[in-house]
Amino acid sequence: MKITIIGVGLIGGSMAMKLREQHFADYVFGVDLNENHLLEAKELGIIDEISTLENAVKNSDLIIIAIPVDAARKILPTVLDLVNENQTVMDAGSTKLGIVNAVKNHQKRNRYVAFHPMWGTENSGPKSAVSESFSGRAAVICDQKDSAEDALNLVKKVAENLDMNVIYMNADEHDVHTAYISHISHITSYALANTVLEKEREEDTIFQLASSGFSSTVRLAKSHPEMWVPIFKQNKENVLDVLNEHISQLRKFKSALEKENYELLEELIKNANRIRGILK
Amino acid sequence: MKITIIGVGLIGGSMAMKLREQHFADYVFGVDLNENHLLEAKELGIIDEISTLENAVKNSDLIIIAIPVDAARKILPTVLDLVNENQTVMDAGSTKLGIVNAVKNHQKRNRYVAFHPMWGTENSGPKSAVSESFSGRAAVICDQKDSAEDALNLVKKVAENLDMNVIYMNADEHDVHTAYISHISHITSYALANTVLEKEREEDTIFQLASSGFSSTVRLAKSHPEMWVPIFKQNKENVLDVLNEHISQLRKFKSALEKENYELLEELIKNANRIRGILK
Repeated sequence: MKITIIGVGLIGGSMAMKLREQHFADYVFGVDLNENHLLEAKELGIIDEISTLENAVKNSDLIIIAIPVDAARKILPTVLDLVNENQTVMDAGSTKLGIVNAVKNHQKRNRYVAFHPMWGTENSGPKSAVSESFSGRAAVICDQKDSAEDALNLVKKVAENLDMNVIYMNADEHDVHTAYISHISHITSYALANTVLEKEREEDTIFQLASSGFSSTVRLAKSHPEMWVPIFKQNKENVLDVLNEHISQLRKFKSALEKENYELLEELIKNANRIRGILK
Repeated sequence: MKITIIGVGLIGGSMAMKLREQHFADYVFGVDLNENHLLEAKELGIIDEISTLENAVKNSDLIIIAIPVDAARKILPTVLDLVNENQTVMDAGSTKLGIVNAVKNHQKRNRYVAFHPMWGTENSGPKSAVSESFSGRAAVICDQKDSAEDALNLVKKVAENLDMNVIYMNADEHDVHTAYISHISHITSYALANTVLEKEREEDTIFQLASSGFSSTVRLAKSHPEMWVPIFKQNKENVLDVLNEHISQLRKFKSALEKENYELLEELIKNANRIRGILK
């Protein structure tokens, strides 16, 4: 099978690597605005050919869009314009309502499957790609009734080849869930980094004292704005809702400390500890 | 050298394992209120002998206190009462001002070295102990002028044998730095867990959708209140100071989103990205 990867970065690159290893993809076209990424991806053997969008799409059975969600929403109608009834288009974006709404009246909407693999790191670019990244993670398919059966089956096979577990939900449900299971984590991590950078003027001290706990909490704060601003923008209402809840949870800790109510502090911590039973 | 470990959990157990591997410790007495931990530590070969406090201290060259900071502050004067001029006492607590103040007028204050190894995990108990834990991490020694030279040298050797880099600072400086490099991370993680648990009633969805990013941000929320309530209590003023700053940083994200000021959002994220240059 021939595939096109639009956006040969962390996600697109990792998918291409794995799909090629699985012999699911025989030939991979790479399309990207970033020429360095294209050259790197070619050199790393992630793609076979650097191509224009038109040429790549024309010659592929499957087109995977793996670029920031604002750009994905813009490019999807163009890609659908170019495909025929034997071709399938999928994306990998972290928000779903924006992109499905962008093509809801498109004549070839049913050639598109809304997809979100629940994996990522704070790094970007083809050099960060790892073929085993997705293994054992969830892959969300949204609004499956709007996709043609053969397109849906092909995307399921992609998920299988990535060793992912498929979950189905509506695009709006998806955006609510990801607001608190993924997007808020990034905001807290960014805000934590800013707190420490504001309070701790001696960068050396941060570097020297940073424990593994701090590093893991602040890891996501390394994630790039090019990817995350569009996500927050498209999922604004849900993210704000969760952010308000988060600030109110932090205020409970603040109030417990201010009032020296250590029983309440203990209760808050014990409640948080319940996450241990949910996440191994 | 014979050593006593008071608190044969994650930290005390990991120290004993490494010091024994290095042939720095020939014989290890274990003292703990938790009998199961003592039996586990004995079975795992972390300690040689389960002992009473008095017997262990009497027969050891070095006594390491590795219990929650409220209990450590209480037990230190008793331990100092028991030691002579050839014995050394150190602790491993995450707050330092409370404990050094508890013995500032003790006749044998100079036999004690205030120590904090910058490592920990969300787990506890001797079964979680790992001998390589401390390698490459910072070890803080506080108020070194209040310790006898030989005691200080012995603790430096402990740090060397744990493969740690020693940093010196005053106890009050230490407590300020750890408030934002360690303690606030735990509060944000607890609050994040509570936010998600409050908003997401379907635990299955959390479990299924949780990405690596979410897991790493929320990992510290598994940490036990027995350890953390006393830390927050002893470091209340500093933690509150950082917590207020953190809430105000989160409010900036909230305001940028509410006002749809995506340039500001991008700036906030770019500022947070500076952590990439500090933490590899």
